[in-house]
Amino acid sequence: MDNNIKEFEILDRELMYKGKIIDFYKDTLKTPTGDTVIWDYIDHKGAAAVVPVDEEGNIILVSQYRNAIRKQTLEIPAGGINPGEEPMVSAMREVEEETGYNITEIHPLTNIYTAIAYCNEIIYMYYAKVGSMKEQNLDEDEFIDVKKYSLDEIKTMILNGTIQDTKTISAILTYDLIVSKQNN
Amino acid sequence: MDNNIKEFEILDRELMYKGKIIDFYKDTLKTPTGDTVIWDYIDHKGAAAVVPVDEEGNIILVSQYRNAIRKQTLEIPAGGINPGEEPMVSAMREVEEETGYNITEIHPLTNIYTAIAYCNEIIYMYYAKVGSMKEQNLDEDEFIDVKKYSLDEIKTMILNGTIQDTKTISAILTYDLIVSKQNN
Repeated sequence: MDNNIKEFEILDRELMYKGKIIDFYKDTLKTPTGDTVIWDYIDHKGAAAVVPVDEEGNIILVSQYRNAIRKQTLEIPAGGINPGEEPMVSAMREVEEETGYNITEIHPLTNIYTAIAYCNEIIYMYYAKVGSMKEQNLDEDEFIDVKKYSLDEIKTMILNGTIQDTKTISAILTYDLIVSKQNN
Repeated sequence: MDNNIKEFEILDRELMYKGKIIDFYKDTLKTPTGDTVIWDYIDHKGAAAVVPVDEEGNIILVSQYRNAIRKQTLEIPAGGINPGEEPMVSAMREVEEETGYNITEIHPLTNIYTAIAYCNEIIYMYYAKVGSMKEQNLDEDEFIDVKKYSLDEIKTMILNGTIQDTKTISAILTYDLIVSKQNN
């Protein structure tokens, strides 16, 4: 995108702590002007997320308690990619496990970086048509309620701060761009 | 938002590594059904970001090399909040330092959580009118180019994957919701 890329060279990358889902590294970098700086770097295995749309055009969201922010949230279904798994397969698995809805059609939406200043996490995002609702199949440490809203209700909840999860905002408003294009 | 909140109790929070801008904790949690689980928790001091709009309605973006993803990116101006600083003050400072534009008017947009599964990072987001461009005033380890695009050009770059930074996608598409409402 730029002829004038000012790359930072990695002089050293040292593992400082290995977590359950992320690992913390201390990077020693050489700046474009030759200075040496120490920066944080978090390694994440990647995730997948889906905007699931039912036959009436409503969007299925999940409500769950998030320890990191000590709050109940409204989000699109999402989850980590298992080793060797195709992101689209992870995406379909997460929708069916977390919501109980079965997917009848799925399309790539876009991919996002969540915390670009210190973490390599990428979320592969999709939108999908869902059919009938069966049963949730949650992990032992997942406690998730399933909700259903129109696109307009979700836009209102983004504007009034009810929805603050950035993958959910990015995914649904990008999906809205696609829907608007198709309708024009 | 839910009568049926399934909170996780924090039994223990142990600092495992103190980074430059983020700290890594090991959380021991009690799930709603009484099981004990170990989860990662990253503490972040919070950030501020702005959609800067010039007199012609163009949006000012910054292009920089991001070590965590080893890529050049296009983003809205953003940066960490200094201790004790009001987020709006951080936001204005970042725009003026990174882009050289001076802000003539600023409004709250929405706030986002970037990596809700393991990190408490919140970004306070604003949109602002900017006037004339003066000079950038970058930190020693910042190397930033200033760019200018119409809202339609940015929507195209979101749809074709040129822009993948989630705060930028969330902020600009939320700003677009506000602009569309004002025009209707």
